[in-house]
Amino acid sequence: MSLLETYKQVRSHTEYLCEPLEIEDFVVQPVLDVSPLKWHLGHTTWFFETFVLKPNDHNYKEFHPKYPYLFNSYYVSAGDRWERASRGQLTRPTVKEIFDYRKYVDQAMHQFLSDGNISEELKNVIILGFNHEQQHQELFLYDIKRILGDNPLYPSYREDLKETKAINEKFEWLKMDEGIYDIGFDGAGFHFDNERGKHKVFLHEFQIASALVTNGEFIEFIKDGAYRDPMLWLSEGWDWVQKNEVNAPRYWHQEDGGEWWNYTLGGYRKVSDDDPLCHISYYEADAFARWKNGRLPTEQEWEVACNMYSPNVLLKTNFVDNRQFKPIQTSDYDFFGNVWEWTASAYTAYPYYRPPKGALGEYNGKFMVNQMVLRGGSFGTSRNHIRSTYRNFFHPHLRWMFSGIRLAKHI
Amino acid sequence: MSLLETYKQVRSHTEYLCEPLEIEDFVVQPVLDVSPLKWHLGHTTWFFETFVLKPNDHNYKEFHPKYPYLFNSYYVSAGDRWERASRGQLTRPTVKEIFDYRKYVDQAMHQFLSDGNISEELKNVIILGFNHEQQHQELFLYDIKRILGDNPLYPSYREDLKETKAINEKFEWLKMDEGIYDIGFDGAGFHFDNERGKHKVFLHEFQIASALVTNGEFIEFIKDGAYRDPMLWLSEGWDWVQKNEVNAPRYWHQEDGGEWWNYTLGGYRKVSDDDPLCHISYYEADAFARWKNGRLPTEQEWEVACNMYSPNVLLKTNFVDNRQFKPIQTSDYDFFGNVWEWTASAYTAYPYYRPPKGALGEYNGKFMVNQMVLRGGSFGTSRNHIRSTYRNFFHPHLRWMFSGIRLAKHI
Amino acid sequence: MSLLETYKQVRSHTEYLCEPLEIEDFVVQPVLDVSPLKWHLGHTTWFFETFVLKPNDHNYKEFHPKYPYLFNSYYVSAGDRWERASRGQLTRPTVKEIFDYRKYVDQAMHQFLSDGNISEELKNVIILGFNHEQQHQELFLYDIKRILGDNPLYPSYREDLKETKAINEKFEWLKMDEGIYDIGFDGAGFHFDNERGKHKVFLHEFQIASALVTNGEFIEFIKDGAYRDPMLWLSEGWDWVQKNEVNAPRYWHQEDGGEWWNYTLGGYRKVSDDDPLCHISYYEADAFARWKNGRLPTEQEWEVACNMYSPNVLLKTNFVDNRQFKPIQTSDYDFFGNVWEWTASAYTAYPYYRPPKGALGEYNGKFMVNQMVLRGGSFGTSRNHIRSTYRNFFHPHLRWMFSGIRLAKHI
Amino acid sequence: MSLLETYKQVRSHTEYLCEPLEIEDFVVQPVLDVSPLKWHLGHTTWFFETFVLKPNDHNYKEFHPKYPYLFNSYYVSAGDRWERASRGQLTRPTVKEIFDYRKYVDQAMHQFLSDGNISEELKNVIILGFNHEQQHQELFLYDIKRILGDNPLYPSYREDLKETKAINEKFEWLKMDEGIYDIGFDGAGFHFDNERGKHKVFLHEFQIASALVTNGEFIEFIKDGAYRDPMLWLSEGWDWVQKNEVNAPRYWHQEDGGEWWNYTLGGYRKVSDDDPLCHISYYEADAFARWKNGRLPTEQEWEVACNMYSPNVLLKTNFVDNRQFKPIQTSDYDFFGNVWEWTASAYTAYPYYRPPKGALGEYNGKFMVNQMVLRGGSFGTSRNHIRSTYRNFFHPHLRWMFSGIRLAKHI
Repeated sequence: MSLLETYKQVRSHTEYLCEPLEIEDFVVQPVLDVSPLKWHLGHTTWFFETFVLKPNDHNYKEFHPKYPYLFNSYYVSAGDRWERASRGQLTRPTVKEIFDYRKYVDQAMHQFLSDGNISEELKNVIILGFNHEQQHQELFLYDIKRILGDNPLYPSYREDLKETKAINEKFEWLKMDEGIYDIGFDGAGFHFDNERGKHKVFLHEFQIASALVTNGEFIEFIKDGAYRDPMLWLSEGWDWVQKNEVNAPRYWHQEDGGEWWNYTLGGYRKVSDDDPLCHISYYEADAFARWKNGRLPTEQEWEVACNMYSPNVLLKTNFVDNRQFKPIQTSDYDFFGNVWEWTASAYTAYPYYRPPKGALGEYNGKFMVNQMVLRGGSFGTSRNHIRSTYRNFFHPHLRWMFSGIRLAKHI
Repeated sequence: MSLLETYKQVRSHTEYLCEPLEIEDFVVQPVLDVSPLKWHLGHTTWFFETFVLKPNDHNYKEFHPKYPYLFNSYYVSAGDRWERASRGQLTRPTVKEIFDYRKYVDQAMHQFLSDGNISEELKNVIILGFNHEQQHQELFLYDIKRILGDNPLYPSYREDLKETKAINEKFEWLKMDEGIYDIGFDGAGFHFDNERGKHKVFLHEFQIASALVTNGEFIEFIKDGAYRDPMLWLSEGWDWVQKNEVNAPRYWHQEDGGEWWNYTLGGYRKVSDDDPLCHISYYEADAFARWKNGRLPTEQEWEVACNMYSPNVLLKTNFVDNRQFKPIQTSDYDFFGNVWEWTASAYTAYPYYRPPKGALGEYNGKFMVNQMVLRGGSFGTSRNHIRSTYRNFFHPHLRWMFSGIRLAKHI
Repeated sequence: MSLLETYKQVRSHTEYLCEPLEIEDFVVQPVLDVSPLKWHLGHTTWFFETFVLKPNDHNYKEFHPKYPYLFNSYYVSAGDRWERASRGQLTRPTVKEIFDYRKYVDQAMHQFLSDGNISEELKNVIILGFNHEQQHQELFLYDIKRILGDNPLYPSYREDLKETKAINEKFEWLKMDEGIYDIGFDGAGFHFDNERGKHKVFLHEFQIASALVTNGEFIEFIKDGAYRDPMLWLSEGWDWVQKNEVNAPRYWHQEDGGEWWNYTLGGYRKVSDDDPLCHISYYEADAFARWKNGRLPTEQEWEVACNMYSPNVLLKTNFVDNRQFKPIQTSDYDFFGNVWEWTASAYTAYPYYRPPKGALGEYNGKFMVNQMVLRGGSFGTSRNHIRSTYRNFFHPHLRWMFSGIRLAKHI
Repeated sequence: MSLLETYKQVRSHTEYLCEPLEIEDFVVQPVLDVSPLKWHLGHTTWFFETFVLKPNDHNYKEFHPKYPYLFNSYYVSAGDRWERASRGQLTRPTVKEIFDYRKYVDQAMHQFLSDGNISEELKNVIILGFNHEQQHQELFLYDIKRILGDNPLYPSYREDLKETKAINEKFEWLKMDEGIYDIGFDGAGFHFDNERGKHKVFLHEFQIASALVTNGEFIEFIKDGAYRDPMLWLSEGWDWVQKNEVNAPRYWHQEDGGEWWNYTLGGYRKVSDDDPLCHISYYEADAFARWKNGRLPTEQEWEVACNMYSPNVLLKTNFVDNRQFKPIQTSDYDFFGNVWEWTASAYTAYPYYRPPKGALGEYNGKFMVNQMVLRGGSFGTSRNHIRSTYRNFFHPHLRWMFSGIRLAKHI
């Protein structure tokens, strides 16, 4: 696909995600981590305006002098910005005005990309812009779910989502031999700076599960009283459970009679035992693994096992283009899609890591502390966005994203 | 006016206030004290549904089973309610749905009020509903200003507001003799429970200002370094100044060159020296009075002076029907309208105070601690809503409401 | 008594209170409101050094250049000071060093007071110093109780305190006629600035209880579920109950079997039904009065009733010189001692109030917001410290001081 | 040394550390992380009482029934405990009573260790008790410094500490070859569970500094404006700098004229340029490395370099038995003592990690999230306590411990 075609395809997916929503849904910020949906629309557009059009297109005229201030996220070197915690206080610009901003920048980008003559370096920035927007598309889904799923009216995001029957896979422990493996990205295509620096690691032999932990398995964990047993938890995890009175995954509610129901993007439904578990924190993933006498894989173990058993990402199924908007087991040995898988690895720099110069060097490197790595993408991820070397990362207490568990163990 | 006519008039004023707004403006709650505008629309409607229609109209069918949960404010005896601090997280029901709710309840109320046969007790509840909605109409204006006025785009609430020239009144000290005075409501018309219990007080002789403190006078206070001099402030006031880095009234900004500008409902404008000061906390009112070698009047002093010098509220000018949407000096000796006037009196019970039985007994009485009394109404108040005995009350640190100063002193 | 004799008597009472304590007890600050005991020792000494010796005794040499910084409380005009919230972090100066400081200042004061030639103005400052130290002696007892009473070992403050049998008084409603009364101090002796400004008030007729509310009566309130009934509470009171899970007065614990026990300065003991209730917040006092169909008296009602029924403070019994260290009913109509009595009055300025010039003007005036008035003194008060016009004040949520209830009602 | 001799030696070191202190110093807890010194004395004693005497010595009688509640730290399986954040509120038991407790347990332990017949498993618990007390001895020094060093009187911990002249070492980059290395403990002696599970890692070639970063080098970092340049910091590090207004290492103050002084355990002194840098957070270590175009070593790199260049810990110098009570460069290639060295590694489990069963399994494993590893020991560490495999860990924002920097880089 040409840059222009990809640009159109990526940008139109954002609009597709907006379709079922009401204007009101675009405005609020219930907690710091959830940005208003309209902010995502402006911010992804600001990225192209700031890093592509303004420095490279001499005909381009800034859409609005205050928008950079409103839509910069955390790029210190790109100038001052409105405080993140107060994004949900801004009712203006309106959703319509932000869509006008998108159209204005889209027109300029269409022209600019048609004119050709784009340096390799700038091309990389543009492709980074695509991946950046894809990341925000996935955040957009997390945030929609957080906004609608805590509303006592439980409004559906989409009315047209069917209950897909999960395929109950045969569970296997997949064996991996000890040895020296290559880790990290070393090809020609797009990748983030944090996965660069291909390097060798020695792995002892281990086993990794062929399938994700299911809701049914997690209900056993709950029934066994695990949320009330401090011996299963990391100390900070136990504090988190106590302080927040956590007793189930996010969006789960126990109805009279004891059945577990949960909010899904298709509405309020009974928890399906065979579906992959979703919306758990690292603390819960870690406690579950301990309870099950297993452990989480390291990110290196995950990467080499994925390369072995799930080499071709394009064949795999449950990405956002699947339009399920929920995790569902669909094929054997699938390390991609469905839910991001918590690993036992803290997010730190690879041996030869160097962030790029300038504002884009702030993209990944400055977050390398106090977060854990997740791998594999989710049902909200775009198919052409993910790789086996892709490193996602979140703070261990978070669980509004689409996160789940694949177990590992020693032999 | 008949009950029906008054109902229509009060309810349509709410819709008038909504006209200039965008849907986005109705959704957010920037701080605890500011409720989403759409919540006000639902809550005032819930009042009529809950206290008039459901107990009295046997034909009435509840509009939605969850709305009482969403739109009850603080009436413990009226059932559970959604947490106040989280009102701004709810994007649904949409603004349109809430207007549908209003129309549905309005139709039922029109029918009910046309059918007649309304007991005196129920009539009082209905009139309370009118006054309740009028209070929320004024809060609605405070909240609009808070939402638009902190937006760096400074969007106007109304584009059609002209800069009215203030009449620079001749300032006088009005004398009041010592003696025994009657305080509180004792007539036949509507009044709140907290102003009932007419009783006698002895007042020593005093003087009270004929006019409100102006912006120009307050700029002198600022220039004199008053915001940096702890000796002028109550101890908690000084803590508040320090912690919040307060150096001017709310919505004021000092531009390069030193000129003071402020956000008004007509947009961002230069502070007008002759206009009455607005948007100050009790702490600032108290510090200003000390700096000026005066004091604030007690609520009793205010009430008897108002009865003496400003007896006929209906002749007075700058209420919300004036459509100025800002304070402006317009006539001599006017104790009504423009800005609520901070008094030196804490909000406590009158000697014979008894709250009514039931949920409506929660209206005023349970707030009688840690708040200060304000008197007289503002440019956001409805003309038929105010009286000389009317007791408004706010916490001393608040200033998003339309609050100002009238000085008093001993002779 | 001469100034010198009074000085010695007041200062030695501080040392008497210290006698039973361990060094460790002098160091900690469990919450903001509780100052370390050794800080009280230093601060009261600093008062005489700063306001008497340094400006008036040319031979006096400052004890230590950093002590003013460490022992100034809140007198902005007396210079910088160590942050109040961090007093409990300072292990030095040691208790012994602070006693050395006391001795050093005492010697200088003895000499200074012996030399005579003290102006009337300075004499007033010295007497203010006595009253200041007496206030801190009482705070010292509150703080001792807070420090020892929350320790799971429940160490006694004094081992020699006997269980005194309460006299079960005949309860009466004392009647007061309507009329104009004088309020405030107008004599020759010592008084605080906040009680000055004798003025007239009109009071409607009322009744006031001859005795304090007892523990037994309050147990009925608890048994009736009052701590779980929001309709009995001020809104902020109910929030306070919920947030702090309050279900009894401070220092009360319900043992297995349901009996109420409480920490007293004599150790952990069964709650005595006939003793006056102690350690309640304004919120609890207000809720109890409502539950009992009464109300709290205003401070004006309290003062005129006290002048009528309890005119001679010196005849009354349960002050700190009684060495009971607990409240106990001992004689009829006694408005003094035992427990400070919450009134329905917010702490605001009297009509003609003017604070003195200079640092001592910060003593009382700057606290006149968000606090409620208490009257009458307690079992921790010095007999020669209290008057019927004396206005004590605390925030409504506090209850580590010796606070109780006397009811009033309308006729 | 026999168990008994080691017991006596370890326990007496605690008393040695207490010698110069005042009783007041033992009581306070200025922040959550700093426990009262007397608590350390009780807690280390409780360890022997709880895990050695009570389950194994049938003659042993518990010293006090409430002490387990007061002195358990975080061992959930060992019973309820007093809340950590409130340790500083307890003035009782007194220091003397806790020393009595120590003597009582010491006598029982002396007898028990003399009687012999101790199983291998119990022996390991006793030796863990020694190491546990040694860890608290080091924390004791951190906490002393925190308590005295923030006091505006700057009291010395010891008056007898001389200014030792640092040896200005020749700085070298030490080279390490790429290859497979063994990591973790695999011998016969004492070790913690978290360093067990010897395993192989592949390391690419790297260089590591022969010496620690000095104060002089860090002053250059400050002078270069590094504390004001967000591009040098991790995002959470920058937030930490801003929120806490950090502009220098802990205990440093810039005096008039610009010279840097710092509180040391010997008092307030000028910062010595040649001494190793101490009291920095991970954020500062990471920012300094970035500014210097280097990086921190991983814990694996540190361990193999230490094994290569600094194999014999016993020959090394600046441990607590040196009685310097400060870091000082004393010999070449010394990876031990002086300051704990921040590594780039998050504290997570080794591949074959399994915590022990029971309460002692709570010792290390439950903290394996959100902390960073430090290696090598400090001037506060006991010589027989440290190993090249020893993993210490702290949250990245902490710096009251003796922490510094050794740089690494790629070749």
